[in-house]
Amino acid sequence: MREQVYIREVGPRDGLQMAKIILSAEKKLEWCKAVAAAGIREIEVTSFVPPAVLPQFADAAEVARGALLIGDLRPSVLVPNLKGAEIALALGMPVIAYVVSASEAHNLANVRRSTQESLADFARIVAARDAAPGPRAILVGCIATAFGCTIQGIVSERRVSEIAERYAEIGADEIVVADTVGYGDPGAVRRVVKSVIAATSPRRIACHFHDTRGLGLANVTAAVDVGVRAFDASLGGLGGCPFAPGATGNIDTEDTAFLLEQLGFDTGVDLNAIVAVRRRLEEWLPQEQFSGAIARAGLPKTYRVGRGGSSGG
Amino acid sequence: MREQVYIREVGPRDGLQMAKIILSAEKKLEWCKAVAAAGIREIEVTSFVPPAVLPQFADAAEVARGALLIGDLRPSVLVPNLKGAEIALALGMPVIAYVVSASEAHNLANVRRSTQESLADFARIVAARDAAPGPRAILVGCIATAFGCTIQGIVSERRVSEIAERYAEIGADEIVVADTVGYGDPGAVRRVVKSVIAATSPRRIACHFHDTRGLGLANVTAAVDVGVRAFDASLGGLGGCPFAPGATGNIDTEDTAFLLEQLGFDTGVDLNAIVAVRRRLEEWLPQEQFSGAIARAGLPKTYRVGRGGSSGG
Repeated sequence: MREQVYIREVGPRDGLQMAKIILSAEKKLEWCKAVAAAGIREIEVTSFVPPAVLPQFADAAEVARGALLIGDLRPSVLVPNLKGAEIALALGMPVIAYVVSASEAHNLANVRRSTQESLADFARIVAARDAAPGPRAILVGCIATAFGCTIQGIVSERRVSEIAERYAEIGADEIVVADTVGYGDPGAVRRVVKSVIAATSPRRIACHFHDTRGLGLANVTAAVDVGVRAFDASLGGLGGCPFAPGATGNIDTEDTAFLLEQLGFDTGVDLNAIVAVRRRLEEWLPQEQFSGAIARAGLPKTYRVGRGGSSGG
Repeated sequence: MREQVYIREVGPRDGLQMAKIILSAEKKLEWCKAVAAAGIREIEVTSFVPPAVLPQFADAAEVARGALLIGDLRPSVLVPNLKGAEIALALGMPVIAYVVSASEAHNLANVRRSTQESLADFARIVAARDAAPGPRAILVGCIATAFGCTIQGIVSERRVSEIAERYAEIGADEIVVADTVGYGDPGAVRRVVKSVIAATSPRRIACHFHDTRGLGLANVTAAVDVGVRAFDASLGGLGGCPFAPGATGNIDTEDTAFLLEQLGFDTGVDLNAIVAVRRRLEEWLPQEQFSGAIARAGLPKTYRVGRGGSSGG
């Protein structure tokens, strides 16, 4: 039996964040359903930010509610603050993600607070979660700019593991190490992820990579090597960061699934089905740049036969 | 002191093989000079194939002679057979590369011979080298389709190490493991390269990857992990294979150098200078597809500062 690796589709949130078209809630939910049907069980479906900041997510509650009705799906939402978390908790979202930047400068630019203030807000979110009725929501603590920042430059590796440790102490159930601007390399990934695991074990660690400088899948390989079994990705590599000029998007869901399957892991993803979903997205979002090697070159002739034959990284 | 990793620019040969424009010998040599000035010491400058097969290389002797005059450069040439090798030896080329496909079907399609016949021809090349006057030329034995083939499908990992062993017995000084059609993944790279090293040590092992399915740099990382210290690459990812439909080109020289520098190795490459050479190529070859993340996104703000700070893979 092959070991499982989880891919979380973040396209409906991270991928749409800077999109030129506002996609209808109906289409967003169709996207989520199609991705779930192709074998992905975790989707970050929306973000509870004020519509004035990101009009794309003015329909956040509608999308979140709709996602809860999709079978076999564990939807997550991103919340920028306690207020967003309260809405998510009231809706009964099973997974709620929150972001703190390891770069002080990026955190200020992103949410106009220091990282200390952001962590204090996360503590209030934990308290709200603990006080909420119903099943206990999983809180995901994301560490943005974990490998450096376009504003500040270097982010020390020690700072990332310190924030991870604080997240865990406060009450995060899962930690996401995010290379928001595409500065990470496989060596840095191994070092940072190892220290984050040491600081927060046995919590689940996920990685969130952008392919800005071509190292996205090399970084996935490095993270898998040191024990990471969960990755954020978006179909067609959709996405970007308002503070990462020239940055391309997330790593491609389809290419990430292909890599992990080739390494002998079970992602649950039907690659032909997921590429078909991506084609639909390309029609819906004609102004966006889509990347992705599998969608362009197709699967190797050896794909089915070779699956599971690899050493598991 | 950082450990060295060697990048061999194969653009003037592999990159031009399928180009729509025939580049002048003058421009090819300007390319080689500029690449050498940017810090690359090994360039595969041309191929001694019959002009009727590949008109792009009708100027092979002129380019080879010109490349010998470029300071600080160790030019290599590709030869398809004994006749090509004899020309290369007569010209005094210091490095001569020869290709055998691990896939029997690919070898037949490529050179209309069985792999056994191709290896027998390599033995004749070794004899010609040994009999030639002057400094001893280095013979490089390349193993094409080492990770599978678009015609035949699966290529067994054992077959690759057997061909490598035969190459070494016959007299190859260096072995190149080539993923001609982009079927390799980091797991397969580790396994195949380890067994090739075991079969041919202490000869130098190089890897030649194509980025067809997005795993080129993940494969470089995997190869570095198991001890490879030499890689073929081409500026802007130029190149392809006539028997790999839909295949994109080689891994990008500039992105490969960036990855290796970030991993703490010394490639000798001045990244800004090499990107400038690539820009010139884009002007010369307007009909070709160029890839490459560094040329698009630029170097990280942390690049100079971070160099050499990584753990060396």
